[in-house]
Amino acid sequence: MKSIPSPSAKRLAVLSQLLLQQPPEKQRITSSELSAITTWTESTIRKDISFLELYKGKSNGYEVSSLYEAICASLSLKKSSGIHKCCVVGLGKLGEALLSSSFENSNFKIVAGFDSNANRIELLQSTIPLYSTADFERVMKMEKMEYALLAVGDDKAQKYAEKIARAGIKGIVNYTGAVLVLPSDVAVHNAGPASALTLLLTK
Amino acid sequence: MKSIPSPSAKRLAVLSQLLLQQPPEKQRITSSELSAITTWTESTIRKDISFLELYKGKSNGYEVSSLYEAICASLSLKKSSGIHKCCVVGLGKLGEALLSSSFENSNFKIVAGFDSNANRIELLQSTIPLYSTADFERVMKMEKMEYALLAVGDDKAQKYAEKIARAGIKGIVNYTGAVLVLPSDVAVHNAGPASALTLLLTK
Repeated sequence: MKSIPSPSAKRLAVLSQLLLQQPPEKQRITSSELSAITTWTESTIRKDISFLELYKGKSNGYEVSSLYEAICASLSLKKSSGIHKCCVVGLGKLGEALLSSSFENSNFKIVAGFDSNANRIELLQSTIPLYSTADFERVMKMEKMEYALLAVGDDKAQKYAEKIARAGIKGIVNYTGAVLVLPSDVAVHNAGPASALTLLLTK
Repeated sequence: MKSIPSPSAKRLAVLSQLLLQQPPEKQRITSSELSAITTWTESTIRKDISFLELYKGKSNGYEVSSLYEAICASLSLKKSSGIHKCCVVGLGKLGEALLSSSFENSNFKIVAGFDSNANRIELLQSTIPLYSTADFERVMKMEKMEYALLAVGDDKAQKYAEKIARAGIKGIVNYTGAVLVLPSDVAVHNAGPASALTLLLTK
């Protein structure tokens, strides 16, 4: 097997996650479809996939299950290993909805929710354990959480982002409308309605 | 005034939106902060801003209000003109939360919500008009809606995305976990928890 350069290996690991998220009826996927979600060019994707031992066949696109298996085999990923533990910070309406969002067919799992308001925590019905934000660092270390969905009010976003960044989180999906300024080792993806809409204008 | 090349003008228009979203207590902003949210390099941002008639002064960063005024002046943007009308498609828990999300200090406004379930529409309390998804095309033309926040179930995401793309929407913020495949003139930003977390792995 050819050795896979590190940037390609990283992209292939992400592709494997995307493939896991496909609905069961989706049997084939094209480089154009993969390009649409990752924003990588189709030629980059095809080049990455060319490092795999994969028989492409004549028809368009790749068979989802074969591509997934080939990536796992070449990167020695184990299917159900590598679950990334996540949490939701801020349990207003949006945070509550995120808490119950579906992570089926994904390598992510929400293991905790946090809010600064003790009444809110008591009021919420959830099968996921809920904690005070004061307990964030302790729970994060205990649960080995890697990622956070941030859904606090815009005015508190930077403060809480700094708090969870200091605790050692790897990345934040920012559902607030605030611009977060964080150390470069914390990845941020902006997903709040106002930010996401603004980013659409750039496309 | 120097003439502004079109890519710079487009980026400056986006920066003006971001500046509008800043909280009132945020008086100065650096190119590094603007780079963090836009993912454009700091040098690109500084170059774009260099086209403006703007006195930078000695201290770090730009004064938010002066930068905003300078962009509006040079691009002949009017402050409250250019409100982009948006809608929420799919009014489950997440859609309901999005419907009531804050768009203060932003040029976006949610003018309609859509769901395929008539009971759900009746049940929901909202100051925003709610419609059946069957009425999408009619309401979109009437309201001149430009953008949609898609929050339907993953299994219906592609179907509804195609429907609203056909109606002529400019862009979709995809809050579902599905990979949308749409004509290239429809911009897509992925903001669903599973997709957004997966995209964090690429950073």
